Amino acid sequence: MSADVEAGADGGAAERSGSPSGLSRRGLFGLAAGVGAAGLALGAGAGSAAGVAVGRAREQGGASPVHDFFGAHQAGITTPVQDHLHFASFDMMARTDRADLVSLLQDWSYAAARMTQGLDVSATGAIGGSPEAPPDDTGEALGLPASGLTITFGFGPTLFETAEGDDRYGLAARRPALLERLPAFLGDDLDPARSHGDLCIQACADDPQVAVHAVRNLSRIAFGRARLRWSQLGFGKTSRTTSAQATPRNLFGFKDGTANILADDHEALAEHVWVGEGDEPAWLAGGSYLVARRIAMLIETWDRVRLSEQQRIIGRDKGEGAPLSGGREGSAPDFAAADATGAPAIDAASHVRLAHPETNGGIRILRRGYNFVDGNTELGRLDAGLFFLSYQRSPAQFVALQRSLSTDLMNEYLRHVGSGIWAIPRGAAPGSYVGAELFA
Amino acid sequence: MSADVEAGADGGAAERSGSPSGLSRRGLFGLAAGVGAAGLALGAGAGSAAGVAVGRAREQGGASPVHDFFGAHQAGITTPVQDHLHFASFDMMARTDRADLVSLLQDWSYAAARMTQGLDVSATGAIGGSPEAPPDDTGEALGLPASGLTITFGFGPTLFETAEGDDRYGLAARRPALLERLPAFLGDDLDPARSHGDLCIQACADDPQVAVHAVRNLSRIAFGRARLRWSQLGFGKTSRTTSAQATPRNLFGFKDGTANILADDHEALAEHVWVGEGDEPAWLAGGSYLVARRIAMLIETWDRVRLSEQQRIIGRDKGEGAPLSGGREGSAPDFAAADATGAPAIDAASHVRLAHPETNGGIRILRRGYNFVDGNTELGRLDAGLFFLSYQRSPAQFVALQRSLSTDLMNEYLRHVGSGIWAIPRGAAPGSYVGAELFA
Repeated sequence: MSADVEAGADGGAAERSGSPSGLSRRGLFGLAAGVGAAGLALGAGAGSAAGVAVGRAREQGGASPVHDFFGAHQAGITTPVQDHLHFASFDMMARTDRADLVSLLQDWSYAAARMTQGLDVSATGAIGGSPEAPPDDTGEALGLPASGLTITFGFGPTLFETAEGDDRYGLAARRPALLERLPAFLGDDLDPARSHGDLCIQACADDPQVAVHAVRNLSRIAFGRARLRWSQLGFGKTSRTTSAQATPRNLFGFKDGTANILADDHEALAEHVWVGEGDEPAWLAGGSYLVARRIAMLIETWDRVRLSEQQRIIGRDKGEGAPLSGGREGSAPDFAAADATGAPAIDAASHVRLAHPETNGGIRILRRGYNFVDGNTELGRLDAGLFFLSYQRSPAQFVALQRSLSTDLMNEYLRHVGSGIWAIPRGAAPGSYVGAELFA
Repeated sequence: MSADVEAGADGGAAERSGSPSGLSRRGLFGLAAGVGAAGLALGAGAGSAAGVAVGRAREQGGASPVHDFFGAHQAGITTPVQDHLHFASFDMMARTDRADLVSLLQDWSYAAARMTQGLDVSATGAIGGSPEAPPDDTGEALGLPASGLTITFGFGPTLFETAEGDDRYGLAARRPALLERLPAFLGDDLDPARSHGDLCIQACADDPQVAVHAVRNLSRIAFGRARLRWSQLGFGKTSRTTSAQATPRNLFGFKDGTANILADDHEALAEHVWVGEGDEPAWLAGGSYLVARRIAMLIETWDRVRLSEQQRIIGRDKGEGAPLSGGREGSAPDFAAADATGAPAIDAASHVRLAHPETNGGIRILRRGYNFVDGNTELGRLDAGLFFLSYQRSPAQFVALQRSLSTDLMNEYLRHVGSGIWAIPRGAAPGSYVGAELFA
């Protein structure tokens, strides 16, 4: 694995930083310049920095996966779901222009390309610059391996045009027609402070310190251009994207994501997840749409529901995860099957039926959510739930499924308290940056 | 490792539940009884439950450590620091009596003894009981290994006597004289909603879902007797307790806990951590005192400090973690050493000097803290910091060190926003429960 890491360090972002239309270090320079005479620290350290990077890579013992940042699709969508999430939403700051947005995306791409390879945020990193300047990298991931880190960027509706119709960055004409704030759903109780945002970053890693380090440093790089609007940590992935991964359990104690779209099902991905070459707008081809929902789960109430009722609500048995129509976890649910009393074995208002493609004209999405626990409420209940993340070719897929779930028996135990939607551009080509095609 | 698990399942709590003065299942029965006719579900399932337990243990592939719950000292103190923390503080509910408190501790011990072995909270667990009753176990850890889980219980000052002088449980006369709310420290900005509590539970595991499952189920078992007051998740342990563990980094990017007391230093543990046989009160011998502090770190401000100043504040270099007087990470700091200009190599107000035993008459503590990130503030700053946990033979050790730190250069970047202290009883003897000696 360390050979991969070193290949990443040698062939990755470090050598592409000079490309004028590609990866930038302007913002990083800006950080250092803020403290005065040390403005050239980053450039000056370039010679010795290579040694730092290799040293860092060599520290990475053990089998820690490393994922490419560059590619046809952004990493973090079909990538095997990592153990931890730090999701962050950003708003662009007042008085920023198109050049600021482009430089931010270049700087973010530069740093993300490095961090996903297990490297510091820049060549001088946490300790390689001038002692008289703040380090480029905050340092808490020093010595930690890449830990499967992926960093996925998205563009919210307001980036293209504000609610007041302000075309701040000359992007209104390029806005995907489908990219608009989600409609209100039955039972929504959205907190604006946990919803929406001009930009989003999904950082996933097998070590939470690595995911947090990524968001913290990208937030720092955004200084003066974009500001953190809200963020969410998650753990215990609730979905899987490869058949080798065991199906994890959500905080209701049930297996979740059994029927998810898997990374090797290229046909389903092309049909349900990736924006196609013939879709509008053309610049989004190879990309996707991301929906995030912070779904609070009333777990104390759920925990007092009898097992048979829990299983009726979900439509699966709790132990094996098999549909109540019989079989094993992977068996297709039979919605026509009857139980011993002649009633439907799977309740018509069960979650599995209402969410199933068969009930929804074949609609499928790729789910990638995480459990969360953020302390507790004043009533002594855990502030816990599911941070739902799904990728789809069109927001209409999510909207249709969510409307189908309006009669879900599970709703009694859920509150949707946060929401957001972002267009996810295709992956950056080597030497370029995420979203370049939007500005072409 | 699975042999250990099965030994735990066979020789552990399951067969000791009948002991009248020991482990109880009364509270678990109470849970089931709350839904009516299913009150005997737990007992009825005992035969088949063994199969469930063994099945669970057998699912545990890979090298997942399992720690004994019973022993001279509670686990979770000198245990090699796990990757994740869920800490919870509880208050006893109104109109509870001494019998409620004893039964709660018995039920908690019964469940903790099982969960730390990778088992469900009871013999019928998540799926083995009657389908017409709520399962005893919430189920989200089903199929997950023990993951090194430890569960450590503590008694706060108010358990012995409320602030109003109410001796609710007839324990005032047995209160450790040293167990009182910590004095106010310079710079304290404590939030009562994140401070104090009658009881505490420290759950540590290598999988956050396992730690969360433990606190959730113990909170559920407490229903009607104690209520969650506050809780805190943590990750990226900031201390180590064995020399085999690498020194982790805190969110300032520095190695932390280099000079911690290690688990194999029995002399230091006897002198600085365990309450001695001759100490008062006798019932606390083999126990300890736990101090928790939620310390917010102003990381965005810190990140703009130049490297040389960061290192001056800490007193160590950022990369290696060596004291600024020279050497390597493990080298003893030389506070008399001078730099090239003749000034002290280690600043007199640096953190390493003010916290060092040499500066504090030999005082040492065992630290076991975790990093936390709880989203962000309205200003777009990460709500991040250190959840400090330390074990010591006497609270006076912490108080002296914290007073010594009153001139710490680091204070400019810290806010203490939560605080608590608990007496940590010795470990439960097999068949007994945590804290039994308090009621003897």
